[in-house]
Amino acid sequence: MEQLAKALGTLVRTQRKASGLSQDALALACNIDRSYMGRIERGEVNITVEKLYQIAKALDCAPSALLPSMSGLRID
Amino acid sequence: MEQLAKALGTLVRTQRKASGLSQDALALACNIDRSYMGRIERGEVNITVEKLYQIAKALDCAPSALLPSMSGLRID
Repeated sequence: MEQLAKALGTLVRTQRKASGLSQDALALACNIDRSYMGRIERGEVNITVEKLYQIAKALDCAPSALLPSMSGLRID
Repeated sequence: MEQLAKALGTLVRTQRKASGLSQDALALACNIDRSYMGRIERGEVNITVEKLYQIAKALDCAPSALLPSMSGLRID
């Protein structure tokens, strides 16, 4: 799980920075607690698909744009 | 959440049938309880991204292939 969560968190951070949003602004837009958003970006939590869609909507990108490639990930 | 979960469940079911797996076989391959897999396909639960990857791996498809299009979905 860790690899996946870390890779996804990195994609969220990259997409957030590309859209010029602060972590606080993204958390607010997603109705997520600021510290929880930090944990998402650091890959410390395994978010739900619904949360993925909320973040994608706030970042104005497709949810799939935040999904790491399966290759190289260890999925148990 | 319901719309998203239902649309995702339908995609899992369609992909499962296309790969010729029974619901039991998919549940076993994902190390998921049979009845929980049924709830996933009926859109009754909001799965994690990790579970999405486990299902995609068992169905030998990309995780994004199981993600409904954002358009038409109400994401709160």
